[in-house]
Amino acid sequence: MKAEIISIGTEILLGHILNTNASYLSQKLAELGIDVYFQSTVGDNPKRLSFLLRQALKRAEIIITTGGLGPTIDDITLETITQTFHCRLILRKKILSQIENHFKKRGLKMPSINKRQAYLPENAYVLENKIGTAPGFILRKDKKLLIVLPGPPSELIPMFEEKVIPFLKEKLKITEIIFTRTLKISGLCESEIAEKIKDLLKLKPPLTVGIYAHPQEIELKITAKAKNKEIALRGISQIESVIRKRFGEYIFGKDEETLEEVVGRVLTKKRKTLAVAESCSGGLIAHRLTNVPGSSHYFISGIVAYSQKEKVRLLKVPVEVIKKYGAVSKEVAEIMAKNVRKMAKADIGIGVTGIAGPKGGSSDKPVGLVYIGISTENKTEVKEYRFSGERFVIKLKASQEALDIVRKKLLR
Amino acid sequence: MKAEIISIGTEILLGHILNTNASYLSQKLAELGIDVYFQSTVGDNPKRLSFLLRQALKRAEIIITTGGLGPTIDDITLETITQTFHCRLILRKKILSQIENHFKKRGLKMPSINKRQAYLPENAYVLENKIGTAPGFILRKDKKLLIVLPGPPSELIPMFEEKVIPFLKEKLKITEIIFTRTLKISGLCESEIAEKIKDLLKLKPPLTVGIYAHPQEIELKITAKAKNKEIALRGISQIESVIRKRFGEYIFGKDEETLEEVVGRVLTKKRKTLAVAESCSGGLIAHRLTNVPGSSHYFISGIVAYSQKEKVRLLKVPVEVIKKYGAVSKEVAEIMAKNVRKMAKADIGIGVTGIAGPKGGSSDKPVGLVYIGISTENKTEVKEYRFSGERFVIKLKASQEALDIVRKKLLR
Repeated sequence: MKAEIISIGTEILLGHILNTNASYLSQKLAELGIDVYFQSTVGDNPKRLSFLLRQALKRAEIIITTGGLGPTIDDITLETITQTFHCRLILRKKILSQIENHFKKRGLKMPSINKRQAYLPENAYVLENKIGTAPGFILRKDKKLLIVLPGPPSELIPMFEEKVIPFLKEKLKITEIIFTRTLKISGLCESEIAEKIKDLLKLKPPLTVGIYAHPQEIELKITAKAKNKEIALRGISQIESVIRKRFGEYIFGKDEETLEEVVGRVLTKKRKTLAVAESCSGGLIAHRLTNVPGSSHYFISGIVAYSQKEKVRLLKVPVEVIKKYGAVSKEVAEIMAKNVRKMAKADIGIGVTGIAGPKGGSSDKPVGLVYIGISTENKTEVKEYRFSGERFVIKLKASQEALDIVRKKLLR
Repeated sequence: MKAEIISIGTEILLGHILNTNASYLSQKLAELGIDVYFQSTVGDNPKRLSFLLRQALKRAEIIITTGGLGPTIDDITLETITQTFHCRLILRKKILSQIENHFKKRGLKMPSINKRQAYLPENAYVLENKIGTAPGFILRKDKKLLIVLPGPPSELIPMFEEKVIPFLKEKLKITEIIFTRTLKISGLCESEIAEKIKDLLKLKPPLTVGIYAHPQEIELKITAKAKNKEIALRGISQIESVIRKRFGEYIFGKDEETLEEVVGRVLTKKRKTLAVAESCSGGLIAHRLTNVPGSSHYFISGIVAYSQKEKVRLLKVPVEVIKKYGAVSKEVAEIMAKNVRKMAKADIGIGVTGIAGPKGGSSDKPVGLVYIGISTENKTEVKEYRFSGERFVIKLKASQEALDIVRKKLLR
């Protein structure tokens, strides 16, 4: 079973946006055991799109298009498909009322141009759009499938997961699947990790291991090709246990899990609460924690004490301590962690102070120097870090370490 | 002048890595006035790559390939090009000693497989690689150019900027450039905007207008094709002033500017300071504000009062007000904004409370309901919003509106 992805949008050809859809879809198709041999990108040009559609139909069984389904005249996907495959468009009343509702909920009247989006090819299987106004659809053509999806990832992803995957699973009798297990590591760098799994990185299909670096964490992907999920998982879990033995608690999570989700889960399980006092991370720790649904159960409050005065007022850091050691110091991080915990009546307090840059560094205290304190009823500890990277990356790494310290604390 | 980009690598087709090269190259080619009509991605497969190369040679004058130049057997680009175009490979001694040096500098001996990388097609113009071991090259074929680049962006980017751009400028006598101006709009939805610039969206080159939607903001891109930057800018500024007249202060910034940068600039200029009290946005406003270098000059502090108790303790919201109106209410947002301002001794206070979901909504107060208060010495105002989308999107939209309210307040 072969698939081909066609991304439609002049903004991609101009390099204005990154094509994350192609990457997302490729990953999901691989998991279904569907090979992607080609990805193509074309602008908002009917002739060139039509050419790609016809070419793709010749060499693949499944063609997925993304983008160009909006209400404006730039959006040429529907019209091009209609003309290329001689479809008749019919008004879908249910879709129309969904689009009208979309605007009504926001207290708006549907602009007349949006009506266009309710017309879909006669025999198409309609994919409703829960987030935006553009419906997707699936068309059968010479025993092949043309799957037409909207461009915005926030609309495409739920549509693909909730509608397209079940559709494909049902309609296609898939015999081989690819299954990937991702293990996420924090606190070690890529080359350290690569050195420790040199042997595994050399594995050949059906079982392979890959290493993918992000600024704040490293992913190890174990990929298995097998007849079914059970066989794939059996192979994967053998490799997984080898990797887990080598890295122990450095592995914080797996697959789609984020560190903040893991921290949230452990806090919930241990019935502990958390309060954070941030300076250089500027609210990012609180933001990440509150990205997790249900975080209000364990996250009590966050203080972003950006100015020195506010460190004194909000966190009761004594002025003398700041004067003596500086706002970026072990001592201040310790007091921040301890006081935020006590004042919020939380079980765990975190205090982060550092220099995110690009300015504000000195030879003594360079950009990237960060102190992270963690406080519980029994003990308050501070660690010193020297992160590299841009301002945003330093914030990200500081938030990652802070969350990871909480995780490790709770594991013990 | 037309170009086509071919990205080579099974890791892209599997969705393991994002194809940032295609986006980077497209942008750079556009700036040179070179149109990209197609981007394609293919795996480490000689037959399919050969097909794409031959197809691209038919429809474009410049073909750029990325990836597949490493020393391992997975790396099939050089061999495929050699076979497709019947080139003779010759050993480039200078390149060989560069590769040997690359290893020597790291205290290593060159692995024998790397010698392969020093063989390049006979008539190729060699592109030296300062970062890695894989050289790139340019091949002329039937008056067309085949530009072969390594995959890692850290190698590709300097090679393209230092070698390929000067080469193209010289050989192609480039007389036309493309220049883009982006205008960013907050507070209006895509279809409202599209409706208001229906006429402009129909413009044809050399001057075009495109509309690109993000969950929290809309971008209008004015693109001009012209002989030089001055002529391009003249055309762009005409369109820009038409658009600015139609949207007025809804336009918050241009080009790479973020809303938080604009807010920071205006705060700095007006010498005003800001403090924020966040509930449902969970620290994202503080995070965005502190992403801007120098934000410590105007951002005083942020309070993420996630629990009700903390709203009372940290922001002095009276318990009775919460009991009477609920934590998600106009009244609470107003007090949060006012008190955070007063307590932090800031000029402006922001208070945000709402329901980010997915749970916690009711028919009366659904997920997406957000109140944003802004307080200055003279006045405190609250606006009600009903945002749609996932938890993260609701947080994002709430943070966007909050920042935009500050911007608009400061403009008056």
